[in-house]
Amino acid sequence: MNTLERLESGVRTYSRSFPVIFSRAQGSRLYTEDGREYIDFLAGAGTLNYGHNNPKLKKALIDYIQHDGITHGLDMWTQAKKEFLDNLENLIFKPRGLDYKVQFTGPTGTNAVEAALRIARNTTGRTNIISFTNAFHGVTLGSLATTGNSKFREAAGLPTQGVSFMPYDGYLGEQVDTLDFLEKALQDKSSGIDFPAAVLVETVQGEGGINAARIEWLQRLANICQQNDILLIVDDIQAGCGRTGKFFSFEHAHIKPDIVTSSKSLSAFGLPFAMVLMRPELDQWKPGQYNGTFRGNNLAFITAAAALREYWSNDLFERDILRKSRIVEHRFNQMIELLQAEGVQASQRGRGLMRGIHMHSGELADRITSQAFKRGLIIETSGPEGEVVKCLCPLVIKDQELTKGLDILEASIKAVLADEDAEPVIEDARERASA
Amino acid sequence: MNTLERLESGVRTYSRSFPVIFSRAQGSRLYTEDGREYIDFLAGAGTLNYGHNNPKLKKALIDYIQHDGITHGLDMWTQAKKEFLDNLENLIFKPRGLDYKVQFTGPTGTNAVEAALRIARNTTGRTNIISFTNAFHGVTLGSLATTGNSKFREAAGLPTQGVSFMPYDGYLGEQVDTLDFLEKALQDKSSGIDFPAAVLVETVQGEGGINAARIEWLQRLANICQQNDILLIVDDIQAGCGRTGKFFSFEHAHIKPDIVTSSKSLSAFGLPFAMVLMRPELDQWKPGQYNGTFRGNNLAFITAAAALREYWSNDLFERDILRKSRIVEHRFNQMIELLQAEGVQASQRGRGLMRGIHMHSGELADRITSQAFKRGLIIETSGPEGEVVKCLCPLVIKDQELTKGLDILEASIKAVLADEDAEPVIEDARERASA
Amino acid sequence: MNTLERLESGVRTYSRSFPVIFSRAQGSRLYTEDGREYIDFLAGAGTLNYGHNNPKLKKALIDYIQHDGITHGLDMWTQAKKEFLDNLENLIFKPRGLDYKVQFTGPTGTNAVEAALRIARNTTGRTNIISFTNAFHGVTLGSLATTGNSKFREAAGLPTQGVSFMPYDGYLGEQVDTLDFLEKALQDKSSGIDFPAAVLVETVQGEGGINAARIEWLQRLANICQQNDILLIVDDIQAGCGRTGKFFSFEHAHIKPDIVTSSKSLSAFGLPFAMVLMRPELDQWKPGQYNGTFRGNNLAFITAAAALREYWSNDLFERDILRKSRIVEHRFNQMIELLQAEGVQASQRGRGLMRGIHMHSGELADRITSQAFKRGLIIETSGPEGEVVKCLCPLVIKDQELTKGLDILEASIKAVLADEDAEPVIEDARERASA
Amino acid sequence: MNTLERLESGVRTYSRSFPVIFSRAQGSRLYTEDGREYIDFLAGAGTLNYGHNNPKLKKALIDYIQHDGITHGLDMWTQAKKEFLDNLENLIFKPRGLDYKVQFTGPTGTNAVEAALRIARNTTGRTNIISFTNAFHGVTLGSLATTGNSKFREAAGLPTQGVSFMPYDGYLGEQVDTLDFLEKALQDKSSGIDFPAAVLVETVQGEGGINAARIEWLQRLANICQQNDILLIVDDIQAGCGRTGKFFSFEHAHIKPDIVTSSKSLSAFGLPFAMVLMRPELDQWKPGQYNGTFRGNNLAFITAAAALREYWSNDLFERDILRKSRIVEHRFNQMIELLQAEGVQASQRGRGLMRGIHMHSGELADRITSQAFKRGLIIETSGPEGEVVKCLCPLVIKDQELTKGLDILEASIKAVLADEDAEPVIEDARERASA
Repeated sequence: MNTLERLESGVRTYSRSFPVIFSRAQGSRLYTEDGREYIDFLAGAGTLNYGHNNPKLKKALIDYIQHDGITHGLDMWTQAKKEFLDNLENLIFKPRGLDYKVQFTGPTGTNAVEAALRIARNTTGRTNIISFTNAFHGVTLGSLATTGNSKFREAAGLPTQGVSFMPYDGYLGEQVDTLDFLEKALQDKSSGIDFPAAVLVETVQGEGGINAARIEWLQRLANICQQNDILLIVDDIQAGCGRTGKFFSFEHAHIKPDIVTSSKSLSAFGLPFAMVLMRPELDQWKPGQYNGTFRGNNLAFITAAAALREYWSNDLFERDILRKSRIVEHRFNQMIELLQAEGVQASQRGRGLMRGIHMHSGELADRITSQAFKRGLIIETSGPEGEVVKCLCPLVIKDQELTKGLDILEASIKAVLADEDAEPVIEDARERASA
Repeated sequence: MNTLERLESGVRTYSRSFPVIFSRAQGSRLYTEDGREYIDFLAGAGTLNYGHNNPKLKKALIDYIQHDGITHGLDMWTQAKKEFLDNLENLIFKPRGLDYKVQFTGPTGTNAVEAALRIARNTTGRTNIISFTNAFHGVTLGSLATTGNSKFREAAGLPTQGVSFMPYDGYLGEQVDTLDFLEKALQDKSSGIDFPAAVLVETVQGEGGINAARIEWLQRLANICQQNDILLIVDDIQAGCGRTGKFFSFEHAHIKPDIVTSSKSLSAFGLPFAMVLMRPELDQWKPGQYNGTFRGNNLAFITAAAALREYWSNDLFERDILRKSRIVEHRFNQMIELLQAEGVQASQRGRGLMRGIHMHSGELADRITSQAFKRGLIIETSGPEGEVVKCLCPLVIKDQELTKGLDILEASIKAVLADEDAEPVIEDARERASA
Repeated sequence: MNTLERLESGVRTYSRSFPVIFSRAQGSRLYTEDGREYIDFLAGAGTLNYGHNNPKLKKALIDYIQHDGITHGLDMWTQAKKEFLDNLENLIFKPRGLDYKVQFTGPTGTNAVEAALRIARNTTGRTNIISFTNAFHGVTLGSLATTGNSKFREAAGLPTQGVSFMPYDGYLGEQVDTLDFLEKALQDKSSGIDFPAAVLVETVQGEGGINAARIEWLQRLANICQQNDILLIVDDIQAGCGRTGKFFSFEHAHIKPDIVTSSKSLSAFGLPFAMVLMRPELDQWKPGQYNGTFRGNNLAFITAAAALREYWSNDLFERDILRKSRIVEHRFNQMIELLQAEGVQASQRGRGLMRGIHMHSGELADRITSQAFKRGLIIETSGPEGEVVKCLCPLVIKDQELTKGLDILEASIKAVLADEDAEPVIEDARERASA
Repeated sequence: MNTLERLESGVRTYSRSFPVIFSRAQGSRLYTEDGREYIDFLAGAGTLNYGHNNPKLKKALIDYIQHDGITHGLDMWTQAKKEFLDNLENLIFKPRGLDYKVQFTGPTGTNAVEAALRIARNTTGRTNIISFTNAFHGVTLGSLATTGNSKFREAAGLPTQGVSFMPYDGYLGEQVDTLDFLEKALQDKSSGIDFPAAVLVETVQGEGGINAARIEWLQRLANICQQNDILLIVDDIQAGCGRTGKFFSFEHAHIKPDIVTSSKSLSAFGLPFAMVLMRPELDQWKPGQYNGTFRGNNLAFITAAAALREYWSNDLFERDILRKSRIVEHRFNQMIELLQAEGVQASQRGRGLMRGIHMHSGELADRITSQAFKRGLIIETSGPEGEVVKCLCPLVIKDQELTKGLDILEASIKAVLADEDAEPVIEDARERASA
């Protein structure tokens, strides 16, 4: 048993699905220490939208470190922070007509969500938060209260509080607009749903199973919030930073949330980083009232700023994401036909390059992703029962790699449907290198 | 108003005390974009024990990035993780007779504390946690419940739960052993203090005012825990990694906590990183039951591993910390005499290089640190009223820098006592460079 | 200002709607100290099903007191308790095939509900309780968590916890079976609705607006509970003791709840009294683990036992309630026609003699009940906005009194629709007596 | 197995200590159905201060019922309520210089405590309540949070919240003034003890073991509350109504609490009844915001008013309680000498006729009370381990009965010390009657 198995807590999970030791990565490919190569359709669960070790960002990062740039400065002012904020304002806020205040929280999504909930509660004086079935917003206790998954909830050791769950779009079938319940409950002073400070929502639920709320539903939700003076918080941690085809996932619905949480691909390099955006009048924090040693990761400022310059100065990147998403959509439809031909009630879900195939069976999905790994593709499942095969490939993936990954996925589906267990057919990077 | 002021949330705090824009840092010195230079007695609030951009660690980091080492891999197995665990086992655990399991949580202290609390609650089936007056363990909701400071607690927007506060060592004066209350309350089935899963304690309270618990108190506490089958969690986030003169702060008391949280200087380079250590039988997590996108920061594995090799292969570093701490202790006593001569009831607190001067007045402490900043020293206060001037200089600080910093602090005290407000006398790095 | 106004807290409410001082009462009539007489369609909000000072019960009560029967005995065994339990077993349990264990809690409904929730939580080891929109189960903190009304919830001074609210039957219109949401949320491990210990439900919501759940809905709910191993608690505090036409309101649906709470008319004489019924295997209390000074009111045992003998030895009483309820239904339909003719979207609600007219306007309902009071009828409103005029006349009301009360109500509706404010036309008992 | 054993929940407790069926009671004596007679030193755990079926009160009660007085009227105005308030104002408030507002809650102590906590939280806008070790304030969820006993707390099925426990007077031995901790924690903004809405205290802890706080301690507590603008709530449910020798137990300390809860002996006849007294400016309830079907028990108004007239029009009753309490004190001291002679570290506790002998052993105390029951005395234990034999005889007990009860207790102590188990020596009322 290696040190990793012996010392690391049993909480580890990805090393169970992918029981190899990775040593390096470039773009959309991961390599093990013994030279195996994998195409990466997981991409850090949406953290590596710009690929592994993106060369342009990498250069900026190494330059910064070499010149003794500030690595850690608590929430002091630094040139790196200024550079990031300048780019954020000019390249993201201004073109979209946004004037958010920016809070750098501890550099994880859950830290940002905890801050967002506090902003909502403190500025409204209310405690309740509306969250949705199948939501995932993190596992620290405040965020956990808004996360639906019982696996995490049961581990709290305490009942959570201050949150009411409502059915997400589509939860009760196509005929029911689930916002009817929310709206009725808000109007009714005896509904038991305490009048909320905020509604917290993902426009596409990642961990929940790549459930994309309809544009009309999001718009109606924003409208309900506005009319009732309830804050709308969009958790854009997984769906943001271009994943759905826009920088912010809520741009598709032409809504402007009161508060936005961002993390995962925000640093653009896989570095821990998170921020909360809020309407200026909501910025009522006292100095230092929400802190954290690593708030404002300066290395992340550097790579994030570089990514904004590189990818978000014009709309070429967005258009490319859209183009690739059509490729995935098309191929997924073909795979779904394969599955349906064998009696599997499969369907496609998602928006942009946040896409999944729903298979109504976690066991089936698991067999397919296991086959894919043997064939050189890293891809995972999501959803309450892990019943959705989820594609979160890097947005910068090369067409050739995308096609290859999709080919492997299709082959894996066929193999599982045919009940075949193929030998690993992954490429060996050393062989290729020596070739 | 610059972008920083305009865009960043009012929650920012260090940029208020130190209203300059820092651009780079080396060792124990910080530099602004316009070339001013500051000695750093803050060191990222204990995050930079090995100094800024420590050259040996920096080289390892840049090498790793240049060779496309894995930056982000969720909790996959990587060579970087293996290297860190190997060093942790060989250089830290084995010499100390420890056999902890290691959990990499989200890379912030509060993430580690939240995990530690859950481990305690889930393995014991109890919910209550004993925390102590003036404790600081983070601000996400679960950790916040164990943090004493009302500034943070009031911002929760919800009452916290599941925690009982007990008086820390010395809280009720020298005559009262505060553990009498804890012990009585545990024996008494009607005390209202629900029998706890764990006691969570800092051996030296950092944010709480550099309160160092007496060795006997810590030993009695460990004993009470053991006899009552209550888990002892030492939060070593600020006091660990050599700060008190040992790798773990609890080594002074020769106790072995059931659970340890570590972060801040763990990466040795200011990179976000955190872990929880636990006795193997407490590792009852289900796979993936506590997660986080940035758990296991691979860049931090690299620098942390390098620091263990560099500084913890023998006892030279520990002995050097002890030597320097005696210097600080001696100089602090001199400053205390100055203060007492002017009627200020000052006293010294702390252990190792975690030291402070208690001044019974936040306003006085604040004036002194403001003067120090004008003179080129970055140093902050802590304690409930900010009444303790706190020295957390890098452990690797050069003697000359340490002396210079202490000289500035002494000059600042004298100036405040004389009611003088000196012009900034900081060195200009550009001038010096050109000299 | 009399002593009552001067001393009593502003929390008082019925003395605002009915600002007179009552001195005595008999059957369905209340009398003031100055001799005015009112027909009582409020009946202690369902507490006086057997009328005021029911002569048969009164005799038993006075006899008991005169012979120094035990008035207060904590939960000691007494002859009075034995007599009640004998009658409960023989006249209620056996004919209905029930074998509940009986717990006498503090003598108020909320005490019984708190006990029921604890039984459910402790026997299942789960914490969550499903309650429904517009539910009312009491205001002590545990019960309050299950009560929908924001007026009470806001007064808690704390957020409640451990309860998820689901839409009650009819809440989302006729087309939506609201149990679809409950069933989906229970099957879905990521719904955020923690798997519950119990579902707590009123078969007819009294305070919530006389909403009667359909029989099929109740049956489906019981079925969902059984299949999921979730306890079903019927709160029969207002709807029980014959109010809907059966002793237990759930008899209509031929279901057997796991736990039942009973109070209000249980003593049959207006005496404080409450009990919890539970399946024998749920009776896992440790001795004395739920207590209360007044648990097991011995005077109430006497009157309750007498009422069981008098009214529940055969089905005559049930049939009489049914007959009267048809009278009310018929007359209410006529009044609804009057209202509709004037454009008021009124509708009838309820079951048995728990009936109301929904008027979509709390202001209109209030004007009608105010007119009724002036005319000698005590009747109140319920529902989130007080929009339902609620008839809870004594079940033993004489036909003549019932008709007179309904006549007054109809006259009041007409007067309000005609915008007339009549002079009080109440009878004067003294005049009548002298006549 | 009789119906009582078969049907009643296992939660029953007094019928285990006293496994007989009682049928009637007069003054300080209880009688079983088969004619046995017991002297009652339990008195409904302090509910029967005026004895069982006190003839003067009984007459008023029967008269009222016979004349069809209002039994149940929700919170309507009634002559009975007016009569009670008149007497309360004239006989209790005015002579003591009090001008409280009076709230009639649900007729149990815990209902009153829940209301008191809400008043404190709503009027201050704070949530935390200070309660004390060994406190008992009831078991509904809000009150339970303030109750120390783990037996009840564990049954909640939920962690309680919103309460911090502090050591009661004497908890840490005679040398420590436990209010030092409270005062320090209030001044310290980082104590973790959220600044409280109120302090809730019993002047003598009944269930907690007849712990009487020193007068100076109560005065210092009142002082701390006043200086910090914290409300002082005295829970006088068990210690009030003359039990300690004054109508309110806090009169001994010459303090005026902001809020007082009263119940148990308030009705003077064992009828369920409770009230909250509050300073007028704290009466900020909205109408009906705290309700309960049985708030304002009219039968209890009648007996309570009669008791005020009968016993509290002058100071004769108080003086008589004092005289009897000296008898008990003297006899208890003698018994303590007996115990000490056999090596039992016994001591006396209490105030007025709320007295106990602390025996440091629940098992010993239990054997003594069991012996006493066999000899015709009903007496129970209290304290965390049941280690205190508690005398709560009716205040109106005849000297002869008091002496007889004390004789039995002394004989029981001797028997247990001699390890003798006597045959029941209780009188048989039938024999006596026939004699």
